[in-house]
Amino acid sequence: MQASGVITITTDFGHKGPFAAVMKGVIISRFPNARIIDLTHDIPAQWPPEAGFWVSHAYRFFPQGTVHLAIVDPGVGTERDILIVEHDQHFFMAPDNGLLARMLDESDSASVFKLDIDALCRLDIFCPSMTFHGRDIFAPVAAELAARRTTPVAIGKPVYDWVPAWLDDAELSGKTATGVIVTVDTFGNLISNIEAGMLEGMQNPVVRIGGRDIPMLPTYGRASPGDFLALINSFGVLEVAKAEGNAAESIGADRGAPVVVTDTG
Amino acid sequence: MQASGVITITTDFGHKGPFAAVMKGVIISRFPNARIIDLTHDIPAQWPPEAGFWVSHAYRFFPQGTVHLAIVDPGVGTERDILIVEHDQHFFMAPDNGLLARMLDESDSASVFKLDIDALCRLDIFCPSMTFHGRDIFAPVAAELAARRTTPVAIGKPVYDWVPAWLDDAELSGKTATGVIVTVDTFGNLISNIEAGMLEGMQNPVVRIGGRDIPMLPTYGRASPGDFLALINSFGVLEVAKAEGNAAESIGADRGAPVVVTDTG
Amino acid sequence: MQASGVITITTDFGHKGPFAAVMKGVIISRFPNARIIDLTHDIPAQWPPEAGFWVSHAYRFFPQGTVHLAIVDPGVGTERDILIVEHDQHFFMAPDNGLLARMLDESDSASVFKLDIDALCRLDIFCPSMTFHGRDIFAPVAAELAARRTTPVAIGKPVYDWVPAWLDDAELSGKTATGVIVTVDTFGNLISNIEAGMLEGMQNPVVRIGGRDIPMLPTYGRASPGDFLALINSFGVLEVAKAEGNAAESIGADRGAPVVVTDTG
Repeated sequence: MQASGVITITTDFGHKGPFAAVMKGVIISRFPNARIIDLTHDIPAQWPPEAGFWVSHAYRFFPQGTVHLAIVDPGVGTERDILIVEHDQHFFMAPDNGLLARMLDESDSASVFKLDIDALCRLDIFCPSMTFHGRDIFAPVAAELAARRTTPVAIGKPVYDWVPAWLDDAELSGKTATGVIVTVDTFGNLISNIEAGMLEGMQNPVVRIGGRDIPMLPTYGRASPGDFLALINSFGVLEVAKAEGNAAESIGADRGAPVVVTDTG
Repeated sequence: MQASGVITITTDFGHKGPFAAVMKGVIISRFPNARIIDLTHDIPAQWPPEAGFWVSHAYRFFPQGTVHLAIVDPGVGTERDILIVEHDQHFFMAPDNGLLARMLDESDSASVFKLDIDALCRLDIFCPSMTFHGRDIFAPVAAELAARRTTPVAIGKPVYDWVPAWLDDAELSGKTATGVIVTVDTFGNLISNIEAGMLEGMQNPVVRIGGRDIPMLPTYGRASPGDFLALINSFGVLEVAKAEGNAAESIGADRGAPVVVTDTG
Repeated sequence: MQASGVITITTDFGHKGPFAAVMKGVIISRFPNARIIDLTHDIPAQWPPEAGFWVSHAYRFFPQGTVHLAIVDPGVGTERDILIVEHDQHFFMAPDNGLLARMLDESDSASVFKLDIDALCRLDIFCPSMTFHGRDIFAPVAAELAARRTTPVAIGKPVYDWVPAWLDDAELSGKTATGVIVTVDTFGNLISNIEAGMLEGMQNPVVRIGGRDIPMLPTYGRASPGDFLALINSFGVLEVAKAEGNAAESIGADRGAPVVVTDTG
């Protein structure tokens, strides 16, 4: 796989301070032609599952050979490892804290490496801080990968297990799919970990969340303003929305809320 | 008109999740040299007038031939059309929901096209989702326009009317101009739809908003700290501010508040 | 010193509206190959010290010859000067309102110039607005500097003093270092103006803030969840954190809070 020169960055740094910016400075200092795209910096503080959810659902919209950095890293400066992954023609780099676990668990072709700290010298990466590996390790390594000056195998050791995912996978049992809300978008849409494939056989699925039964529709505009609806969203997962409204506020549900789909048909 | 390779993006997506990012991924997958600039993603949810206001006041600061995407799109996935516009040496693309209406109403030279959905095939755009046309239609079409591989006339049908603007235009009647607050900036400055030209003949204009009479000054620093002032701002419209303070909070006014300018001179 | 083609932008504009975006439009209209990186736009409104703090601690992570714009500018449109600085192989441009003062006070090699307004004509910069010099003066001048078409000395007059810094410097007196919290990050970490060097001789430093005595540790993960810790952060200054928590909220401290480090060893 050839690197595309593109790097995406996903963090929980928010927008205060120059934290994401200095990562970009480090990248372009090493690789001036890098194309850097912020995926989001608004992952909830120190909660890897949402970062992994978005990276694994968004990567395929970028050019093959893109390097995806995901840094939600409560264990920075401790013994936790850093994973470098080749999967589906993309590169991924994240702390080994469960962030990438669900994507890796589901893949039968991902190549997973543990960054060899000794290899940093060979990339002229010296004296990383104890508190900001995003800037001092992830950014320069991503620059070298994106510039095609190194490869995961050259700087990592193959591994075959990793810290497990923090959230249970969604489950299908008979006519009932059970999952959880992973994230809420700006509109208050509640986005779950129930993939479209789980509902494929259902004739008349009804979605239960926060004590409400909600019908499935193809798009927001098909519901009357103020009505709740559920749909398979543009990333292929079940989402609960309120037409021209905010479902999260109206239902009083948030990340972690259980959601159940039953085929009543 | 030749495309400049520059694309701006205006949305109500906010910064949570990878929604704007995947649009960029789609654009650079098709057109690696695209220069993409976020205009703002903080348009109030599903309120097109502010998006249209900012795009129409900001576009002229970008290179000629820039493609301006504006996606505030409560009707996504329903029958609403998508407009592609050539105006004043720039391209614009937005849902036909009133977003661009005021700019188009005022122009006597804009060329307005309705995107021909059948033309998407010719651009290799297949199977757009029902819920995210920003990523699945706007982004790839903008990439093709910016890369000069297509033109509005090649993929659209000319139209001569469009969904009307949501806000009434500001009006001048005798010595009184009447308008409305369209947006509030980070400082709490209240920005109206009253253009500078409306006040040109006035000798001693006084601005009334929220029960207060406010004098006009040339810049913020000419008022004493804590005093209210009104001015023609850097985008050529009337703005109400509080020196070293937050006018919106102090006055208790927000989007939609009426504002009246009377010539007392 | 040669310009790198890179420009960073630090402001208090927030993310509502197209204020930073039109600066970028102006820059690339003049210099299409500019690389523009947002440092942060979330400086507290009209509070220059935080902008100066971040610019002076972040610049060295960018390529030499980068132009750093910092625009927190309550005096826009009044008589305040604009400074252009060459320092440590980087360029800086900011209003003369104390923003850059601490960095300049500490440097023995910075070259400081006051922008000569008459020179703007020579750069084809005409009729700047009274309220948005970021777009109308800073952006085009930065583009010309970054494109190597002008130099500070060509458009400025040397100056040897400037508006002083708004915050007192941190001080070391005997075994006690005294400083102040300059900024709070997304995680609620309290970041001070006490530089690492001040604590170098201390055997057993204890940090006092908000009535609490807090121990120093090398990284967040070395404290038990919920415990407070202090550390020298990745920008080389003293920071107070709460492991897996929010120190600012838990302590009830914010910008401006005094912080004292005493060597108890």
